[in-house]
Amino acid sequence: MTVTGPQGFRAAGIAAGIKASGALDFTLVVNDGPLDVAAGVFTRNVIKAAPVLWSQEVLKQQRLKAVVLNSGGANAATGPGGFQDTHATAEKVAEVLHTGAIEVAVCSTGLIGERLPMDAVLSGVDTAVKALDASDEASLNAARGVMTTDTKPKQAFAKAESGWSVGGFAKGAGMLAPNLATMLSVLTTDAVVSKEALDRALRSATHVTFDRLDVDGGTSTNDTVLVLASGASGVEPTDAELTELLTRVSLDLVLQLRADSEGATKDVNVTVQGAESETDAIAVARTIAEDNLVKTALFGSDPNWGRIAMALGRVPARIDPEQVSITINGVTLFAQGMPAADRTEADLTGRAIEIVVDLNVGGEAATIYTTDLSHGYVEENSAYSS
Amino acid sequence: MTVTGPQGFRAAGIAAGIKASGALDFTLVVNDGPLDVAAGVFTRNVIKAAPVLWSQEVLKQQRLKAVVLNSGGANAATGPGGFQDTHATAEKVAEVLHTGAIEVAVCSTGLIGERLPMDAVLSGVDTAVKALDASDEASLNAARGVMTTDTKPKQAFAKAESGWSVGGFAKGAGMLAPNLATMLSVLTTDAVVSKEALDRALRSATHVTFDRLDVDGGTSTNDTVLVLASGASGVEPTDAELTELLTRVSLDLVLQLRADSEGATKDVNVTVQGAESETDAIAVARTIAEDNLVKTALFGSDPNWGRIAMALGRVPARIDPEQVSITINGVTLFAQGMPAADRTEADLTGRAIEIVVDLNVGGEAATIYTTDLSHGYVEENSAYSS
Repeated sequence: MTVTGPQGFRAAGIAAGIKASGALDFTLVVNDGPLDVAAGVFTRNVIKAAPVLWSQEVLKQQRLKAVVLNSGGANAATGPGGFQDTHATAEKVAEVLHTGAIEVAVCSTGLIGERLPMDAVLSGVDTAVKALDASDEASLNAARGVMTTDTKPKQAFAKAESGWSVGGFAKGAGMLAPNLATMLSVLTTDAVVSKEALDRALRSATHVTFDRLDVDGGTSTNDTVLVLASGASGVEPTDAELTELLTRVSLDLVLQLRADSEGATKDVNVTVQGAESETDAIAVARTIAEDNLVKTALFGSDPNWGRIAMALGRVPARIDPEQVSITINGVTLFAQGMPAADRTEADLTGRAIEIVVDLNVGGEAATIYTTDLSHGYVEENSAYSS
Repeated sequence: MTVTGPQGFRAAGIAAGIKASGALDFTLVVNDGPLDVAAGVFTRNVIKAAPVLWSQEVLKQQRLKAVVLNSGGANAATGPGGFQDTHATAEKVAEVLHTGAIEVAVCSTGLIGERLPMDAVLSGVDTAVKALDASDEASLNAARGVMTTDTKPKQAFAKAESGWSVGGFAKGAGMLAPNLATMLSVLTTDAVVSKEALDRALRSATHVTFDRLDVDGGTSTNDTVLVLASGASGVEPTDAELTELLTRVSLDLVLQLRADSEGATKDVNVTVQGAESETDAIAVARTIAEDNLVKTALFGSDPNWGRIAMALGRVPARIDPEQVSITINGVTLFAQGMPAADRTEADLTGRAIEIVVDLNVGGEAATIYTTDLSHGYVEENSAYSS
């Protein structure tokens, strides 16, 4: 149990026939209350998929009874017809659950530019409603129903000492990037929370977790993170407690997304510290994380700090070349404008790589979670239309 | 003859012993006048190699007698010692040519963070000076002396009807990116020109050529484009004529650089038109050109316009999703917010790919010259320290 770990939630994941393979492709999460408070963050791409346009609209009132998700098609760049398909899906879920469509969020993931097979989607709603359950199996199936090139489901759960908890699942294997990855995630909590507190906590949590995952710089048309609160635990945490637990579960999911991202053979943390502002720290870390020459060197287990220096030097941030130091897996290779140790002293043969860049001009820091660039990434993304 | 195509120039390319392989690694270009006017543009990376710091300084007076270049080492991130090496190289060239070091530019390319073998460099100057010649062979050797992962030398030449000409060579196979590629290029002309006219013409030419080549988003620490004018033709072209011929030769070199860039299997032009500003057009074209999901799809000959839509949607430019059209190799696949034709109608099996994005919100346009992202790129950059 993860998305159904917190009290007051049921979920289902089924094969609705959207994917030709017959794999699970349809997920439903229902909040049985007593509260129906919700919050969401969405892709900043100006090209937004129909389900994002819909869910952004319904989230304005911050109340959700259910979230319906499908893999096998992104329903993006599909025009007014695609939007009608999303609307019809929400209406169908609302009808079966005896609620209003305004309380139903919709998420889709898959190929851009293709309409969904609506017969399969609508009959999938009926099948999914019958399968709704709070069991571990239902929870796992819900996580499976949103997988595309993911090789495994991603679930997380954490419980506070005072008895309330946060759970959730996520999907996303490529197009993982600035400001939310290709990513769908549904989080649940049985805490008693106000709309305002839940919204603040979600934004704080995603700012340092989902927003910091950057596999390939792509920002999907469909990125969505939703959190639903049932209040079923009867416990009202402080803002800090809520943010802390949401952040912990989100980071857990982000690290699972990174580990399973397309072609990844390295888990790379790029930390920039000593920056004048958090904005500078994020920009420098992101540029290093997205640089293909850095990423291919990491694939080759090569501590090529020269490429890191090249990458950071092209960021419009406050950087003094004489002050910068570059440390890889604990070995400082560059400092005071010149080499500080032989590159061979840094061992990059393991899967985990820690790059720490100290700009030494301020007190701000940020970490971006990324991967290497491997043959597997090229293979998967040149052979697979997604 | 190319760099020695214009009258008044001699060149040499030799093996100085900087590269362990014994390949050519040292190039000298000399301007025999009567003029010694010059102009240069340099990397915008804040981490600048020692030869860039030196050459930027000497170019302030816009007079050059010679340019000395080496491959086998970038002399970047090498501290004060590295700068002294560059200075010593310029002094040595000046001494042998009976001029001042202030008239000698220096360029280096190769691995970042390693000092150059100065015995080899300084004795290379003596050998190169003896080999100076205006022949085709000397010109070709000069182009070869700067090669790193380039598989072939890049030379270009164009002559105006009124009898003056522009020639040159370039190198650069990876780290080819925003605002000059990893790139060294020396251009020559026998036109009679003022410092001001030459500087303006070089900036105009590079703005639409070298600045528009973007293979992998990397901006090298060493990027340099120099132009030397001898005045030996006795002909003084207009500003427009000078800019036109410099642009033509620069574009010729840029397309050669693209064709020979690491792992490239496709020559891709990304043109954005109908933009509100040239800045918007460049930003959108560059983001599409740098997107790994777009680049891997092109490697797979897949007209995956959904990835192009995703990429352009994350640019902070004026974009109305309903107005955008995407055309690949002559087939419009996306328009008015939805698919306009079946993707299979666009044939991407050839090497040349033309992507045209019309934003339909203005009258500005720009083209970025890029490539696909292939297994060859990953292989070359994970196995080779550069």
